[in-house]
Amino acid sequence: MSTEGIEALTGANLVADRERAEGARFRGPDPRTGGEGPLAVAEATSGEVADAVAAAVEAAPVLAAWTPQRRAEVLRGLADALDADGEAIIAVADIETALGRARLSTELARTSNQLRLFADVVAEGRYLEATIDAPNPDVVPPRPDLRRQLVPLGPVAVFGASNFPLAFSVPGGDTASALAAGCPVVAKAHPSHPATCERTARALRAALTDAGAPPGSLSMVHGQGVEVGSALVEAPGIAAVGFTGSRAGGRALHDLAAQRDVPIPVYAEMSSLNPVFVTDGALAARGEEIADGFLQSMTMGTGQFCTKPGVLVLPDSAEGASFAERVAEQAGAHAGGPLLNGRIASALAEQLARTRAIDGVEVLAAGEVTERDGFAARPTVLRVPAERFLAEPDLAAEHFGPMAVLVTASPSEQITVAASLEGQLTATVHTEEDEADKITELVEELTRMAGRVVCNGYPTGVAVTHAMHHGGPYPATTNPLHTSVGSTAIRRFLRPVAYQTAPQALLPPALRDENPLDLPRLLDGAWTTAPVER
Amino acid sequence: MSTEGIEALTGANLVADRERAEGARFRGPDPRTGGEGPLAVAEATSGEVADAVAAAVEAAPVLAAWTPQRRAEVLRGLADALDADGEAIIAVADIETALGRARLSTELARTSNQLRLFADVVAEGRYLEATIDAPNPDVVPPRPDLRRQLVPLGPVAVFGASNFPLAFSVPGGDTASALAAGCPVVAKAHPSHPATCERTARALRAALTDAGAPPGSLSMVHGQGVEVGSALVEAPGIAAVGFTGSRAGGRALHDLAAQRDVPIPVYAEMSSLNPVFVTDGALAARGEEIADGFLQSMTMGTGQFCTKPGVLVLPDSAEGASFAERVAEQAGAHAGGPLLNGRIASALAEQLARTRAIDGVEVLAAGEVTERDGFAARPTVLRVPAERFLAEPDLAAEHFGPMAVLVTASPSEQITVAASLEGQLTATVHTEEDEADKITELVEELTRMAGRVVCNGYPTGVAVTHAMHHGGPYPATTNPLHTSVGSTAIRRFLRPVAYQTAPQALLPPALRDENPLDLPRLLDGAWTTAPVER
Repeated sequence: MSTEGIEALTGANLVADRERAEGARFRGPDPRTGGEGPLAVAEATSGEVADAVAAAVEAAPVLAAWTPQRRAEVLRGLADALDADGEAIIAVADIETALGRARLSTELARTSNQLRLFADVVAEGRYLEATIDAPNPDVVPPRPDLRRQLVPLGPVAVFGASNFPLAFSVPGGDTASALAAGCPVVAKAHPSHPATCERTARALRAALTDAGAPPGSLSMVHGQGVEVGSALVEAPGIAAVGFTGSRAGGRALHDLAAQRDVPIPVYAEMSSLNPVFVTDGALAARGEEIADGFLQSMTMGTGQFCTKPGVLVLPDSAEGASFAERVAEQAGAHAGGPLLNGRIASALAEQLARTRAIDGVEVLAAGEVTERDGFAARPTVLRVPAERFLAEPDLAAEHFGPMAVLVTASPSEQITVAASLEGQLTATVHTEEDEADKITELVEELTRMAGRVVCNGYPTGVAVTHAMHHGGPYPATTNPLHTSVGSTAIRRFLRPVAYQTAPQALLPPALRDENPLDLPRLLDGAWTTAPVER
Repeated sequence: MSTEGIEALTGANLVADRERAEGARFRGPDPRTGGEGPLAVAEATSGEVADAVAAAVEAAPVLAAWTPQRRAEVLRGLADALDADGEAIIAVADIETALGRARLSTELARTSNQLRLFADVVAEGRYLEATIDAPNPDVVPPRPDLRRQLVPLGPVAVFGASNFPLAFSVPGGDTASALAAGCPVVAKAHPSHPATCERTARALRAALTDAGAPPGSLSMVHGQGVEVGSALVEAPGIAAVGFTGSRAGGRALHDLAAQRDVPIPVYAEMSSLNPVFVTDGALAARGEEIADGFLQSMTMGTGQFCTKPGVLVLPDSAEGASFAERVAEQAGAHAGGPLLNGRIASALAEQLARTRAIDGVEVLAAGEVTERDGFAARPTVLRVPAERFLAEPDLAAEHFGPMAVLVTASPSEQITVAASLEGQLTATVHTEEDEADKITELVEELTRMAGRVVCNGYPTGVAVTHAMHHGGPYPATTNPLHTSVGSTAIRRFLRPVAYQTAPQALLPPALRDENPLDLPRLLDGAWTTAPVER
């Protein structure tokens, strides 16, 4: 095993300005061998968790007081720090995840660009929603001088995902948007890539220290089981939780947070089938192209994307049969790829064994799952008629890995299948221009179920931009109002405060008459950077 | 008992387009006599609740498809309908609540103006957050054509409060903002003013029918205990809950909703102490004026406001003693007023008996509570030193009624008391201009704990405007990100959906190139009503 990038790591918990390793050591997996990963890390003790939270509580008012400009500069510094350590980060992440350097290099660029996007959002300033209404004694009820802005919610616990060790882990979107909002972060390192977590946390923490941020701004704790995560969510100092991972894991944290004396929001991005619907017209016009694109999307990252299309609903026709044949052929010839860890491999193998045995299920491609001597899987493709799919909820459960179900359906069955599905991150339709009238109802169902409706494309690949929504109704997430990707992700960690008839000296700078921060503000209903003149 | 406005009422549940009264009848209270209210209403059966929800589910896509302009017109129609029935509504509400016609007349104006504010918000269109980003294949990750807007969350269950039978009940802010968002409403009538609920629901439903809204757009169900409310929150068709009321009630609904198979957001506005801090400077400059204003604010509506100031922290000085003496004198001479129902009266009496007996508590004004032959209370004022207040959590619990605790404290104890308080709807400070430097830390604590920071004023009175925030950290609400008053209250009932590479014909009108609705849209980061030209 190469140890490039690992030498500098200690496996300690990074708690405020200290390294602490009071608990038992454990190792992540080595997906290429099925053995143990390169770094023994220390399970965080309850004391270490408590101290990380306490330091975050202490850091919170300091970070909250920074101007948007300063915060934007710091976020750019964090992006640069990740890029500067890029080679080592990618090397460590590849050892731990076997995702390959090419993919990880793109993922790192995405991760640092995400920090820069939030820097732009913060510098632009409208995210603060500074709002000032002139007093009016003549309305019912009378209106005093009222000024409103958003303030940071407080320390955020971040739980990263195994499948994106950078973009959705310690340096990922939850951490970026929480820091952008002005909230300290206590990140739970993912036990599948703890060295990557340490490496990236060190880069971020060094940049934060250089920028004069308080020591509790970003801590990182290791934990193998549920104890460390539970302690973090239950810590009274934690104000919100960002999570990307399994449905069971996200739901457990949601439930814990809801049962607290002071319940806190949990933004969990969990499971999704990402159904794809193919119309007669699309099938006739470009069936082969869609089949190829679908297989590529479904096997990307060995099917370990939260946006992996896991169901494709297609016409019960001769063209549909050719489509399935082509997918089956390509899946059968596909080399497959590594899985992230043994838990994912064994869960997939068990789930597939059950699903393949369901009455009426036809196995078009039987991709085996390797659980020893390296974790790997080749693609599995099943086919069922719509009425069997509707009768078997196990077929509509996310299979994390390269697996998809083709569902043959009449146009009216397509609607029934769509209506039967739970909340989704994405829903896709392949259709031709002249079919618009025929598929209105289907598109309405897709809008009901999903956070993102993809037309004539594939759900994998999540752009980081203003118009992105990476969320959706439960169980895609625990909170359908919010996104974990894109500029509006910052809202999860902000809350409004209004000031009534406050003297200038007591107002936060963003709300003072002269607008010292030169922010865009909603002044009597219109956005302007003008001062208040009364 | 006068029955003005009651004759036309039936006491039925208003379920879709039917009146149904299958359950046992019950009556609300008559606060002026301590007897029974004027109308026997029918407890909703589980079938009636289920049918109301089913009709709302059916109405949802119809309301969602309305243009913002049409929705704005309908909201104005609802406001006009309430005003047109104003005399009867006020008469019925006065019989049921004893709040007095003057106050109820102001409350009705506030309620219809609130609907008009949401009409303006919807017509203006920015609330939809229509966002369009140009594709860019050169960024990492590449950006396809992405367009995002908000869509209605789905049917909303609304639970009104006893203390505002109009502005925070069936026709109140939750219903107004849910309908403005495009969500059908199933309102749970408040058992303390069921006739008022029926009268206002009839006015709103008639206007909705006139406007061509589907029958399930607004239903209303009666319930005396917890069964009807629980059934509503647990109904799979309900997508969100708006609640104004007690901490126990709001928490119970929050817990029920969190335990559902599909958890849903609960926006509960619950309890608040609304602490007031008075500095040395303010006390010296205008102690008498503050004392008088405080007493007025605390006794308004017989202290039954969620923004009633329940604690005042003042200097432990000779001026502080004079202040307390003045408050005590005026409280002692105050005639008091009616309470809304027997439950409130007995809860207040029991709570006061406990609180007054706490060691170290000095009773400055012993306002008795009447529980028979009409519910009423005169103001109670207690005084304790800061260290006793800090040691006795019962003193920091909301007393719903005309009761306040004066806490004597040194400047450093003021901070300690502030830091000890839970989340609040409001926090107030009376201070002089030259003290700004001395009270920075106090104002930081107020910002931490409260949704609205009031300076040199009183927390009662909640303006309905863009910059209002009527919310706050738990237990003021169950969700600190949202407000129940002001234009941003609409956000509670909307969720984002993004469309990726969608043909024009499949896009919702708000996101089409030509901008057929003439909405302000965030086009590549800038607000404009211009079409997309590519």
